[in-house]
Amino acid sequence: MREAIAESLRARGHSSPNPPVGAVIVDDAGQLVGRGHTQPVGGPHAEVMALRDAGDRARGATAVVTLEPCDHTGRTGPCTRALLAAGVTRVVYAVDDPNPGAGGGATTLRGAGVQVEAGLLDDDVSRGPLREWLFRQRMGRPHVTAKIAATLDGRIAAPDGTSQWITGSEARKRVHVDRGELDAIVVGTGTVLRDDPTLTARLPDGTLRDHQPVRVVLGDRPIPPGARILGPDAPTVIVPGHDPAAVLRALDDALHVQVEGGPTILGAFFAAGLVDRVQVYLAPTILGAGAAAVDDRSVQTLTDAHRFVRSGVEILGDDVLLTLTSTP
Amino acid sequence: MREAIAESLRARGHSSPNPPVGAVIVDDAGQLVGRGHTQPVGGPHAEVMALRDAGDRARGATAVVTLEPCDHTGRTGPCTRALLAAGVTRVVYAVDDPNPGAGGGATTLRGAGVQVEAGLLDDDVSRGPLREWLFRQRMGRPHVTAKIAATLDGRIAAPDGTSQWITGSEARKRVHVDRGELDAIVVGTGTVLRDDPTLTARLPDGTLRDHQPVRVVLGDRPIPPGARILGPDAPTVIVPGHDPAAVLRALDDALHVQVEGGPTILGAFFAAGLVDRVQVYLAPTILGAGAAAVDDRSVQTLTDAHRFVRSGVEILGDDVLLTLTSTP
Repeated sequence: MREAIAESLRARGHSSPNPPVGAVIVDDAGQLVGRGHTQPVGGPHAEVMALRDAGDRARGATAVVTLEPCDHTGRTGPCTRALLAAGVTRVVYAVDDPNPGAGGGATTLRGAGVQVEAGLLDDDVSRGPLREWLFRQRMGRPHVTAKIAATLDGRIAAPDGTSQWITGSEARKRVHVDRGELDAIVVGTGTVLRDDPTLTARLPDGTLRDHQPVRVVLGDRPIPPGARILGPDAPTVIVPGHDPAAVLRALDDALHVQVEGGPTILGAFFAAGLVDRVQVYLAPTILGAGAAAVDDRSVQTLTDAHRFVRSGVEILGDDVLLTLTSTP
Repeated sequence: MREAIAESLRARGHSSPNPPVGAVIVDDAGQLVGRGHTQPVGGPHAEVMALRDAGDRARGATAVVTLEPCDHTGRTGPCTRALLAAGVTRVVYAVDDPNPGAGGGATTLRGAGVQVEAGLLDDDVSRGPLREWLFRQRMGRPHVTAKIAATLDGRIAAPDGTSQWITGSEARKRVHVDRGELDAIVVGTGTVLRDDPTLTARLPDGTLRDHQPVRVVLGDRPIPPGARILGPDAPTVIVPGHDPAAVLRALDDALHVQVEGGPTILGAFFAAGLVDRVQVYLAPTILGAGAAAVDDRSVQTLTDAHRFVRSGVEILGDDVLLTLTSTP
């Protein structure tokens, strides 16, 4: 299952609106003979990719999948049929499919005499690679991460507007890895006018990653025609106004949206209760002046605070990454 | 040495201006037969306390001490003489005494035929229990810690001024443990007028700890006669103006001073380059409005930022404690 989870990570960002699933085929001798992950929409699911990779060695083998195999014909045929046709005799999966249309795969497989085991590393998968997809099935909207890079006293820029490289190179590298798994990144027109960011996902050598998230600019100020965010490396969507719900409506197929600022845009998402995860990169620096990370004018007293649950503390070079989630 | 370090922690806050030293006596069989730590000024040093505890069992035994035994007669006699008189044949210590007046203890002991080993767990002691004393020997002023309790976006109060219990009970408990080892706590008149704090060090049941730091109030606004900070549980010093250096001059014997705020006072210490350690307790909360932790008007651009080195990341219940230091 660890191998299937690792495989599923390769589908993150590419598979939307389908779940990023991973599958491996293991033969009688315990040998891994095939692996695959969900292909972009309209392409094969993880099970089919893994079966193709395994070929004849799938006969009598075990399929290990991060999500219950689907049982319905959508843009592709049901995975249950592909597993049966390949002669797989045992299926182990992590998470039940909560979707009534696609679910029931386990029942179908068992009915056809396949040995089925559910729930292996369920938690790891449902809080990890499938978190955003499961969230979308439950909530009917994309999962939203608020990303902040600040000094330890919560400042994102000095009084003169300088803000480049508050955090160090390891933190920036991590931001680019994460961007490569996102469906969309949201910023305000203020950030575009001030920082002129590209918001692309890049490798350490500066070249583009395989997958680029859609860039969304929220706000009413006009964007200069030469702005880097309008460059050709990724699609860009302009959403007028400051309504976070309008952004999420504009992102039909997205599973995972990240809001990167500035303070007004982040404040609007927090105020609307539309932040599901907070990632704060903190530099070992006290600034003492300059813009705060989040500006939410709706907050008056301490009980108005947006409370979260700590889900991770990571050291990234000189910086610390704190991750909070709205639910454990 | 671990036992000697643990013993030395019991002297922190009590021993100033003397170093908080710990000592244990170990007999031939490896049995711990005595322990002691530095007593309040004028009282015996750690070695003498441990020798008294060991009694006759010190003869032929090893003394393990966190600091090189002193060789001079100050308010108490030299520890070297006490060790020789007790018949100790081996002395192991962590940190050399940098003080030319007291140092040379190792030479004296060796000259008298005692086997002396220096440097055991040197780093643990010099960055731990003796950090502030060694700092004072080097810099001629107390070591200053800036303590902040804030939301993850760096706010210490909501717009209406509410600020109680931003962090949770484990963080508060830790603050009281640390206060019990401080020589002084500094706040501004603004904090006194707004929060009316007691600034005492208390046990979880609310009773006072053995040692109470001096409370220092900095600023020009008058303090109401009924303010809790004027209560009888600890001494209180009022320092007019906003000059951090004046505070440190007023604290003659202090080794370790903690600045607890508010933003103007913290900003003044940062601006003056008089912060040697930063402790930030961060709650898993985004506030989005209200006062920032540090207000330093001297900062204009990002290169003016006060940079530190991360020295610790601790989980305290729902909160995270980040510790930064000015030097590794």
